[in-house]
Amino acid sequence: MTEWIWLNGDILPLGDAKISVEDRGFQFADGVYEVIRFYDGKLFTAPEHLARLKRSAEGIKIPPPLESTHLETEIEKLLGASGLQDGMIYLQLTRGVAPRDHVYGSMPPTLLFYARELPPVPEPGAGPGVKLISVEDQRWQRCWIKSIALLPNILAKNEVVAQGADEAVFIENGLVTECSTSNIFALLGPRLITHPVGPKVLPGITRELVLEIAPTLGLIVEERGLGLDELRQADEIFITSTTREIAWAARWNDHPIRTGRCGPITEKLQQAYRDKVRAATGSALTTA
Amino acid sequence: MTEWIWLNGDILPLGDAKISVEDRGFQFADGVYEVIRFYDGKLFTAPEHLARLKRSAEGIKIPPPLESTHLETEIEKLLGASGLQDGMIYLQLTRGVAPRDHVYGSMPPTLLFYARELPPVPEPGAGPGVKLISVEDQRWQRCWIKSIALLPNILAKNEVVAQGADEAVFIENGLVTECSTSNIFALLGPRLITHPVGPKVLPGITRELVLEIAPTLGLIVEERGLGLDELRQADEIFITSTTREIAWAARWNDHPIRTGRCGPITEKLQQAYRDKVRAATGSALTTA
Repeated sequence: MTEWIWLNGDILPLGDAKISVEDRGFQFADGVYEVIRFYDGKLFTAPEHLARLKRSAEGIKIPPPLESTHLETEIEKLLGASGLQDGMIYLQLTRGVAPRDHVYGSMPPTLLFYARELPPVPEPGAGPGVKLISVEDQRWQRCWIKSIALLPNILAKNEVVAQGADEAVFIENGLVTECSTSNIFALLGPRLITHPVGPKVLPGITRELVLEIAPTLGLIVEERGLGLDELRQADEIFITSTTREIAWAARWNDHPIRTGRCGPITEKLQQAYRDKVRAATGSALTTA
Repeated sequence: MTEWIWLNGDILPLGDAKISVEDRGFQFADGVYEVIRFYDGKLFTAPEHLARLKRSAEGIKIPPPLESTHLETEIEKLLGASGLQDGMIYLQLTRGVAPRDHVYGSMPPTLLFYARELPPVPEPGAGPGVKLISVEDQRWQRCWIKSIALLPNILAKNEVVAQGADEAVFIENGLVTECSTSNIFALLGPRLITHPVGPKVLPGITRELVLEIAPTLGLIVEERGLGLDELRQADEIFITSTTREIAWAARWNDHPIRTGRCGPITEKLQQAYRDKVRAATGSALTTA
């Protein structure tokens, strides 16, 4: 099936979409991006993603070419044309095309997004569980910006995948910050702990929803750096991202996490999250 | 005049050269680059640049598609076709094109290079002098890799340019590391001081040549982090890069550096550097 892309206002087959060699996204990683989930053909938390896109763009001084509401309408049009039911929108905004120079002037930005099918996520409580391996956090200090300068994440992720894991957990000064493609949470009794958003942590949209849900399940949220000792003692650990939703962790480096199965609180969070998806999109949520 | 590009083995006009939206260089900054100077139609220090390219590529596990000597021949062909006498080769190597996924498999890399004219640099001792402003070093920890994940450099550079400066000097823990697009040196009496290559400092080719030349002028080289106090007391400060060669610094934040003119030792280094260029390329070196 042809995949479609919206590129600077035109809709065309993804395979035909080309970028200039001198697009600053290609030469300088001078851009930001978003991944938005859709269920049953309906966007989920699009305003939150587009608000973050705006903050990211402001963070690197790229003027967004479209108002968020207009952009959402355009994304919906593309999604309709794609005929896809369950998947993600990948969106990228770069500063634009100009003869290579670190110093930028004013130029029209490059904006594009395309829709792609995704396999359903596992049922709450099910699935194989994520294997985590910790790595030193060598990234820059503005990870709150969802920038395309992802090379450090790529290197960390592939380093742990080569060791049989799924996700790299960044450690800075002995504290857990986030993962290479997700946020991370630990449950210690009734306390749900995750690192605050900031220089080393992206304001994840799924992360934010979990923090909203947690008190309704009687959990006490603590936003602070997790020590490695705490992580070893955690009752449950899970990661969150737009595409994976809430994924329970089965292993931490060489150690199984407690029972080696999805913990009961993680499962409740997954159910509550899926309730939100159903309420917002009307999806029946076919799952794996 | 048409600019020409070598793109995955084909030579075509730069304006016609397009990259896939799913090139990992565009979506992940998953690539490395080089800038090689040519004078009078001859490449300068090409083997050193191509050896660094190889190290950078190995640093992010991209298999180089061509042997360095073969690559140099291809660059020379393009340079000949371009008809340019004085300028730079911009070269970029990315992991290649694949459906977006942090985890990479095996794929053919994207390799490209193009030639572009550059204005001549000022005569030794001449020119307006570079204005420097210091900024906090917020970059990642593998700056020895010449990666295209340049967003932190872009932000720093443009921040100081907006304040009327030319170049941002990165400071980490009170020590000078390098600049946003160059290495930096200070002269204190007979001592020439620059930060060692490593997590925060690129192995600059011009930097390396300066370290070779320095002892022949009676200078004592010290490779260590420069304190801010030392920088304030420096007799001369200069920056080095492939395109700017050795550029003397006139201002450091709000302070003029000593006399506000190019210092005598910097001028000698510039002359010795240009002697090397003449010897290697046969260029008469037309200067500004």
